[in-house]
Amino acid sequence: MSTAPSNNRLNRQQAESFLSSLSGHYYPNSSREFISGSNKDIQVPFRRIHLSETLHQPTPGVKLPPNEPVDVYDTSSVYGDPDATIDVKAGLKKVRENWIQERHSENQQYNHGITQLAYARRGVITPEMEFIALRENMGRGHLKNPITPEFVRDEVASGRAIIPVNTHHPESEPMIIGRNFLVKVNANIGNSSVSSSIEEEVEKLVWATRWGADTVMDLSTGRNIHQTREWILRNSPVPIGTVPIYQALERVNGVAEDLSWPVFKDVLLEQAEQGVDYFTIHAGVLHDFIKLTAKRVTGIVSRGGSIMAKWCMAHQQESFLYQHFRDICKICAKYDVSLSLGDGLRPGSIADANDEAQFAELRVLGELTQIAWEYDVQVMIEGPGHVPMHKIQENMDEQLKHCHGAPFYTLGPLTTDIAPGYDHITSCIGAAMIGAFGCAMLCYVTPKEHLGLPNKEDVKQGMIAYKIAAHAADLAKGHPGAQARDDAMSKARFEFRWEDQFNLALDPVTARSYHDETLPQDSNKTAQFCSMCGPKFCSMKISHEVRQYNPDTRIDVKVKDAATEGAE
Amino acid sequence: MSTAPSNNRLNRQQAESFLSSLSGHYYPNSSREFISGSNKDIQVPFRRIHLSETLHQPTPGVKLPPNEPVDVYDTSSVYGDPDATIDVKAGLKKVRENWIQERHSENQQYNHGITQLAYARRGVITPEMEFIALRENMGRGHLKNPITPEFVRDEVASGRAIIPVNTHHPESEPMIIGRNFLVKVNANIGNSSVSSSIEEEVEKLVWATRWGADTVMDLSTGRNIHQTREWILRNSPVPIGTVPIYQALERVNGVAEDLSWPVFKDVLLEQAEQGVDYFTIHAGVLHDFIKLTAKRVTGIVSRGGSIMAKWCMAHQQESFLYQHFRDICKICAKYDVSLSLGDGLRPGSIADANDEAQFAELRVLGELTQIAWEYDVQVMIEGPGHVPMHKIQENMDEQLKHCHGAPFYTLGPLTTDIAPGYDHITSCIGAAMIGAFGCAMLCYVTPKEHLGLPNKEDVKQGMIAYKIAAHAADLAKGHPGAQARDDAMSKARFEFRWEDQFNLALDPVTARSYHDETLPQDSNKTAQFCSMCGPKFCSMKISHEVRQYNPDTRIDVKVKDAATEGAE
Repeated sequence: MSTAPSNNRLNRQQAESFLSSLSGHYYPNSSREFISGSNKDIQVPFRRIHLSETLHQPTPGVKLPPNEPVDVYDTSSVYGDPDATIDVKAGLKKVRENWIQERHSENQQYNHGITQLAYARRGVITPEMEFIALRENMGRGHLKNPITPEFVRDEVASGRAIIPVNTHHPESEPMIIGRNFLVKVNANIGNSSVSSSIEEEVEKLVWATRWGADTVMDLSTGRNIHQTREWILRNSPVPIGTVPIYQALERVNGVAEDLSWPVFKDVLLEQAEQGVDYFTIHAGVLHDFIKLTAKRVTGIVSRGGSIMAKWCMAHQQESFLYQHFRDICKICAKYDVSLSLGDGLRPGSIADANDEAQFAELRVLGELTQIAWEYDVQVMIEGPGHVPMHKIQENMDEQLKHCHGAPFYTLGPLTTDIAPGYDHITSCIGAAMIGAFGCAMLCYVTPKEHLGLPNKEDVKQGMIAYKIAAHAADLAKGHPGAQARDDAMSKARFEFRWEDQFNLALDPVTARSYHDETLPQDSNKTAQFCSMCGPKFCSMKISHEVRQYNPDTRIDVKVKDAATEGAE
Repeated sequence: MSTAPSNNRLNRQQAESFLSSLSGHYYPNSSREFISGSNKDIQVPFRRIHLSETLHQPTPGVKLPPNEPVDVYDTSSVYGDPDATIDVKAGLKKVRENWIQERHSENQQYNHGITQLAYARRGVITPEMEFIALRENMGRGHLKNPITPEFVRDEVASGRAIIPVNTHHPESEPMIIGRNFLVKVNANIGNSSVSSSIEEEVEKLVWATRWGADTVMDLSTGRNIHQTREWILRNSPVPIGTVPIYQALERVNGVAEDLSWPVFKDVLLEQAEQGVDYFTIHAGVLHDFIKLTAKRVTGIVSRGGSIMAKWCMAHQQESFLYQHFRDICKICAKYDVSLSLGDGLRPGSIADANDEAQFAELRVLGELTQIAWEYDVQVMIEGPGHVPMHKIQENMDEQLKHCHGAPFYTLGPLTTDIAPGYDHITSCIGAAMIGAFGCAMLCYVTPKEHLGLPNKEDVKQGMIAYKIAAHAADLAKGHPGAQARDDAMSKARFEFRWEDQFNLALDPVTARSYHDETLPQDSNKTAQFCSMCGPKFCSMKISHEVRQYNPDTRIDVKVKDAATEGAE
């Protein structure tokens, strides 16, 4: 593992401005807390939202319990701590270093597989698994059905969940992707030949994790691709995924026909050595499937898929990714790189959804899943794309049927094509639905989808929309404890605790600023009415007044006569 | 009917600025067109989006048909025509005046009911019904299963759909609300005691219809309530709904206990006479149901519901709305005001969803529906609110079961409570789902929900999110012709017709501005690559290159050997 490259491209003022952008007070009245595991090295981070007291008792005579703080899952690591010192040159603390080293000697002795899947199959609960169990319970381990370390192990062993953790990325905080856990969100970042810079990319990484990104894919395609990734990995508390074919294409100067297995293999080794946690590999785009896309409205819309299709057609040969899939698995097994089997033939429009090209590839991804499992390589399956609502369930059903329970990881899906500029919303609908059906991770879509490169604000808007989708799905799936935050918010709302409502929100600063547009005075932060309706028409205020009457009072008059008179 | 009040509160400059805000070029390359019905008075408006030619043939040798213009449903009336002269003092042209007058003499002669339901039951296809059939087909009447005037009549006769058209609002362009038609969107506007002004309200009306509002509810609660409504009605091309209890409460100085049937009846008559097209009446909040809300996290969150609950508790009597429901129906029947039976006990939080209070009221709304139908009064049913995804289907099922097929009209529902500032998104998910399940109209939610009064930008954001939800639901329901716009967009995307993509979008100006942030040069409007990936990594560009190979080429080598070797 190399260290982060030096910061010599920034002058002092630029460097200070960059650093200050990494931390900041985005979550007022929150603190960073830890739960300890069985080993002192296992320190699971949470964000604790502190609440105020209920000052105005809504029902006289009923003493309310104090408002307990609400612990929430936190992906921001040290960047979420405004008091922390951040040194991007040194990189993050290597939280997993000891665990990896301790296992190293044992593995060498017995020649055991070193992936989390290998451990799980051998019945070993790794520190990563224990960390994840504590993390998934969100500090609510007292609930009826908490996630246990053994449950985590069993889900990984069965292939229903993956823990993407390259042994060369010890900075990452363990997390899990599987349909019996919290729904996760991936954010894509990356420069391209059109614009962006290395500094912007690290800042984007931090920015995405601040808003809750569980993993980040580095989709850089321009120059400095190695350097960009090194910075990102050394400073990333979340797993990093890549699409190695992009770098391979750079190596052959953008000429897809010049790609080959040796070129691709070198890229895989380089990226695995750096610490990439999962690879998207479009090994299911077979030569024979390409003709299935000929009548499509939007052809092939996956970059990796189109590159491989071009290669297959030019060479009149089967995809080298497919033919060398076992070699790929061997590399992944050595570093514990997870495979994200790419859907190179995913539909790019409502018209093309659920067609034979898509499902033919999906069935091949199922075959490849079983091959990867032979090598103890962890696998998830990528999914579409553009799918109308009534065809979403079929995607989940087919994936479960053909891919042997491996986790599903979808881009959206977008439920209509007609709203460029708002595709975080068109796709949030599909993402929430497929999440509720069992999709394990959602790849976010920003408002710039189809139009341009996302800036910071776009990344934030995409992340918020997808945290909403993921949380809505968690509620629908009945994840233990997911509703606690909703309930705390609603109680704060009913009790007019405005500051608590802001602080419990996914985006406290925006919630507060919207409130202040209408009622800017500080006194209104304790107002016993809502800013939408004013005091006279506030339903919650009236609702409190209603509760002052005895709710058990019954009336004796025959009340239905007038309305039902002559009704039958 | 009175005429619009004079504009004497604006000086010349203010008036000019106000007027210019009403029209404008929000939809480049669109024109306002009409389809004529059997009578020259029946002129059904559409917006026609003109497309450019396909310059670069994606598949050599294949001649593509020209790109036909796409006709879309248009609610903006004369405000959508940048060349039109708008005179808010005179109000809109009374498009329905002749139809109403022609029927008037006949009705007097035979003492017939004058509601659209009455006509439908007598087997009469009104001009409104014919107008609606043409409108719902969106210029695609050549499709396999077009909507016919007789189908419209039958849906209205059965109570499955309503046409909200007060005979005193002849300015409105007929539209229909029913689950076998396009899903509609309502926008709420209205001042409150906290802020806003009359001029702002008319501007908001125009603004909401510009972004596709099918109906508008005027929820004003402050002073000038009569005047505000008069301006809105005389200038509104869409049906206007109100919640009459708000004005009744103003009449008794905000003291709910002082409400009474005589006060309420006067308000109903005043509003019906002005031309209000539908009334929200919370007649299902029965005295006995109030105690069912005592254990709720957020009590009663409907303003109308809380006002009536307070009245019932104070008087220890049954709701006067329930007791006088037949009197209400008689007033509605006279003007053809539709009833929107309000859900005064809808849940205001995830915790309270689908509880007994909610469903007890729903069953009463079903009883009231049958009473209204006795009087030929058209009815729809209002629904929640806050509902997690897995409880949404039950809402639709219960409504269909207990309300005899009357159309459902829901607020959202919001699928989580934790994202104030983004509740247009939390609710867009629920709205799309319930729309796909059969909800006929969606009441929009803006980003300011729970926080403050929406401004113009909030109204736009709420409308766009809900047009997405409604359209996604139309696709899911397979409405004839709904997918034509998606397909045109996707074809334009695949052919790099950037201007067409912008013009086909729900919000062309935003789509264009996002594209121009990355690639501002005009030359890039014809670029053969997308602004996200640059030329080398553009999947669609590569996809075109792939199609230059013969797609029917087959390869003879045995291709699966390498990957499947040893797999079984």
